[in-house]
Amino acid sequence: MFDVAIIGTGPAGLSAAITLKMREKSVLWFGPADMSAKVEKAEKIANYPGVGIVGGRELNARFRDHAREMGLESVDKLVTTVSKVGERFMLLAENEIFEARSVLLATGVVSAKGVPGEAEYLGRGVSYCATCDGMFYRGKAIAAYCAGSRYAHEVEYLAGIAARVYLYSPERELAVSGENVERLESPIAAVQGRDRVESVRLSDGREIPVDGAFFLRNAISPASLVPGLALDGPHIAVDRQLRTNIEGCFAAGDCAGRPYQIVKAAGEGNAAAHQILEYLARTPGDAL
Amino acid sequence: MFDVAIIGTGPAGLSAAITLKMREKSVLWFGPADMSAKVEKAEKIANYPGVGIVGGRELNARFRDHAREMGLESVDKLVTTVSKVGERFMLLAENEIFEARSVLLATGVVSAKGVPGEAEYLGRGVSYCATCDGMFYRGKAIAAYCAGSRYAHEVEYLAGIAARVYLYSPERELAVSGENVERLESPIAAVQGRDRVESVRLSDGREIPVDGAFFLRNAISPASLVPGLALDGPHIAVDRQLRTNIEGCFAAGDCAGRPYQIVKAAGEGNAAAHQILEYLARTPGDAL
Repeated sequence: MFDVAIIGTGPAGLSAAITLKMREKSVLWFGPADMSAKVEKAEKIANYPGVGIVGGRELNARFRDHAREMGLESVDKLVTTVSKVGERFMLLAENEIFEARSVLLATGVVSAKGVPGEAEYLGRGVSYCATCDGMFYRGKAIAAYCAGSRYAHEVEYLAGIAARVYLYSPERELAVSGENVERLESPIAAVQGRDRVESVRLSDGREIPVDGAFFLRNAISPASLVPGLALDGPHIAVDRQLRTNIEGCFAAGDCAGRPYQIVKAAGEGNAAAHQILEYLARTPGDAL
Repeated sequence: MFDVAIIGTGPAGLSAAITLKMREKSVLWFGPADMSAKVEKAEKIANYPGVGIVGGRELNARFRDHAREMGLESVDKLVTTVSKVGERFMLLAENEIFEARSVLLATGVVSAKGVPGEAEYLGRGVSYCATCDGMFYRGKAIAAYCAGSRYAHEVEYLAGIAARVYLYSPERELAVSGENVERLESPIAAVQGRDRVESVRLSDGREIPVDGAFFLRNAISPASLVPGLALDGPHIAVDRQLRTNIEGCFAAGDCAGRPYQIVKAAGEGNAAAHQILEYLARTPGDAL
């Protein structure tokens, strides 16, 4: 049982992780070790006070250095479900279950809006996690969207179970082995069916009958991630104290609202960390 | 008429100034050029993401470098009153009047709580600004609290007008010339009077009859600074968008609430700057 689980290794998650670690809390930190892809790709950042005008790549490297200096290491697993059970949170990450007394959502904004039918059929043929749901598709046909090489092993895992995998990836050079994997030239444009997924439609109009559709990308919508979480448009609804509607669950950074700015995210991560410290202090710890 | 007046050169004010300047707004920025005394004095800062573990002096130097790199210069004048007149704000700073379409309060927290009687007699013998109110004390006796050498010239200005100046400063080595200046050994503990100031009481119990009391420190309480401003305990009341109860007036950083953390302040300065951009866009500019 950890004091806090932080989801996201962008500036908000990093900022919170540093402060909570300094305050000697046990921190479980989820996200890629290369930190924020968004910071990394920024051409020029001029308004992160104290660093001058820098490239995104350099700033992201400094973030990684800072994490290392503080002895922080993230767990590179995709969290797919967060649920509160009594006074504790259960987090499902690639078939492993973790427990924490509090949660900080620092997941960024889901830039992928999802395709029509994706949210509708979630749990009825649509899945975000191969190792979680793959076993339901033994001998069946599935479509898979794979955002990049870090999800390639998930596709291979699916190929080892399913009869046929129709794969689309924006990364042309993505290397995926498996004789039953058919690469698609056109992206998946819609998920279709009646009670559950029956086919996908590609952007070229072609329809492929499938039993399931996997969207393997680091962009699960907050509502899918945390059942019952209150939203405010595309963002997680938070108050001035960065509290969500679920007690013990906080949000910071882009996922908690505009502006989408690095220092705003880092600032909110810090403020949320302090709210979490207060929450932990007044909530009895687990006796185990 | 400026687009925005920012009060404070700490991390919140700097962060807002950078972002507003990048967006080509005319920014009037008040505060000492040596930036934040609080950052400067911090022994070690470990949770400003991206800079690693640094001394406060170094981080403050980086803040100054960043301001210079962006071509930002602050006006080192103490703002004593901000009032909204119609759609514009009037700012009084050491006898000069400035106008702006919007205001960001980034004044930090007033660590000095003030002495008993200080708030009560404000404007009735208590003043925060020698050059503003000194002229009312020609040939009279005044008490002055002087926080440090940057206010020494204000004490000398008072000594040139008043018959007698009773001066207390926590800085023992403070150099103030003037034959009519009497240095006090004990701090001013209270301001006393009936309708207006009649005496000050020192912490050693001594009472000195005076006509006025000047508190020369960079710590004017928000309520004294902006008449009608809503507070939340010792802080300026703001909503999630960092709006105060006065339209067009925003607050960020320590003055807007805990935690008192550098990156939280910088993040709020950025977020407030974006709210100000939206405010300016929907508020008609002045035709003058």
